[in-house]
Amino acid sequence: MVKVEKFIENAIEEIKREAGDEKVVVALSGGVDSSVCAMLASRAIGKNLIPIYVDTGLMRKGESERICELFCDIGVKRVNAADEFFAALKGVTDPEEKRKIIGERFVRIFEREAHETGARFLLQGTIYPDRIESEGGIKSHHNVGGMPIDMMFERVIEPLRDLYKDEVREVAGGVGLPAEIQHRMPFPGPGLAVRVLGEVTPEAVAVVREANAIAEEELVEAYRPWQCFAALLGRGTGVKGDIRCFGWVVAVRAVNSRDGMTADPLELPFEVLERIAGRITSEIAEVSRVVYDITPKPPATIEYE
Amino acid sequence: MVKVEKFIENAIEEIKREAGDEKVVVALSGGVDSSVCAMLASRAIGKNLIPIYVDTGLMRKGESERICELFCDIGVKRVNAADEFFAALKGVTDPEEKRKIIGERFVRIFEREAHETGARFLLQGTIYPDRIESEGGIKSHHNVGGMPIDMMFERVIEPLRDLYKDEVREVAGGVGLPAEIQHRMPFPGPGLAVRVLGEVTPEAVAVVREANAIAEEELVEAYRPWQCFAALLGRGTGVKGDIRCFGWVVAVRAVNSRDGMTADPLELPFEVLERIAGRITSEIAEVSRVVYDITPKPPATIEYE
Repeated sequence: MVKVEKFIENAIEEIKREAGDEKVVVALSGGVDSSVCAMLASRAIGKNLIPIYVDTGLMRKGESERICELFCDIGVKRVNAADEFFAALKGVTDPEEKRKIIGERFVRIFEREAHETGARFLLQGTIYPDRIESEGGIKSHHNVGGMPIDMMFERVIEPLRDLYKDEVREVAGGVGLPAEIQHRMPFPGPGLAVRVLGEVTPEAVAVVREANAIAEEELVEAYRPWQCFAALLGRGTGVKGDIRCFGWVVAVRAVNSRDGMTADPLELPFEVLERIAGRITSEIAEVSRVVYDITPKPPATIEYE
Repeated sequence: MVKVEKFIENAIEEIKREAGDEKVVVALSGGVDSSVCAMLASRAIGKNLIPIYVDTGLMRKGESERICELFCDIGVKRVNAADEFFAALKGVTDPEEKRKIIGERFVRIFEREAHETGARFLLQGTIYPDRIESEGGIKSHHNVGGMPIDMMFERVIEPLRDLYKDEVREVAGGVGLPAEIQHRMPFPGPGLAVRVLGEVTPEAVAVVREANAIAEEELVEAYRPWQCFAALLGRGTGVKGDIRCFGWVVAVRAVNSRDGMTADPLELPFEVLERIAGRITSEIAEVSRVVYDITPKPPATIEYE
């Protein structure tokens, strides 16, 4: 704990020194890295920190509201951009194109909002593995529009650049972030968009959001998986109220993993699977079928796209 | 058993009387109804029976070969029509349209082949529940192009018209059909086409055919489900040989049922699910992910389309 307190102290000093009297913007994503950054910087430079939260319309149930609530005290600015994202994604089915569109749109919106504040400095939650991955060129967009943003700013401040993920989680506790942020499961930058195979419509996102909430309710507390979520795989036939319908097929994915590089499907009692299928199909009118993913990584990835 | 022998005797007499010296065609599908019909009629009218098997390219692994082998002695005529079916299905994604196209194509091909033989009479495996369903208008195409065919013929002979399915299965044993036909799981008229969500391509059908063969190998003997099969739900990301790929998502469905009207997913040990997923992803290069269907009917149907 001494080590964490020392890190926090040093990081605050460094941010103060680097920022001077300038305004600094940070893009909050709900993830632990940007959250820790924002908390440190708020302590360092107070009102000169401008945290911006872009609501893409692709977040989980209640997540946007919760982020705004948590960062209300440090003056988070919420940008409601769901309509812009859905308009840009209309008709797009290719997963790579979806990711690219979301990243570009995010950068454009953030640029616009940051410009309005007059800030010339950027605070970014880059951690050590991100730098390694960027240098190797493996994952150029490790989070939503992660890389290209820094080119718009005179200076980029990266207080977590030497930390590993588990160290960031420790610091999160030290700066007073709640357990839900500290131990948040990995969540992809493009959000629920990569959990809808094919075209991302507001209707599909609404369905996957509800299904995901049920999967998390049933599994997170009870099994503490590395990651669990729901995804929409397409539509198939069903029977609801004696009428033949054409409803969504929901996949539930729950895995255990040490580092995300390999993963195993969680072995769940059959009655738990049946209860999840029962809840999802009865609580969400548009869903007629639920499947459980039984594939390790490799050969499947954890996410679907 | 006396009852079965009596039925067979009467059915043969009836077919003889109805057919007279006319040539009679029958469309073999591999199902128990048309198979029993053909065996009865062969005993009744010998060479005047012309069994036609239209290979749609949508049958299961080895099924067409097996049907031709089994009915070789009664002179089955095999029509290879896979190219015609795939051409007609190109670009079609709507499930109802897929079914309609397959039914119409089947009728056209059968009409052409039947016309060549000069036959004016049709033998059909209609059973009692089919007649009830047709009258109620619930299921107008209970099998591939079932209904419209009879309009092309002067007379339709239906020796099984008063039997229930379990009675037909008993008769199947009596006419010497092997267990694989007698106890064949339900298989949809449009074949593997309704087990590929979206467009039906030769590549997709080849993949689902292999996956289905593995699912049947692992489950039929060991668990004797009412029905089990594999379906393709779309494509998702995967990792094969360290390379990110975009592979098929295969769903495995296995259900127990009394009559097909309601059904429950088979509770399988997790190691069996893992073995099935392992075999399908390692034996079929194009597949990166396997899911197990955990939904009862209702709200899902047994089949996917």
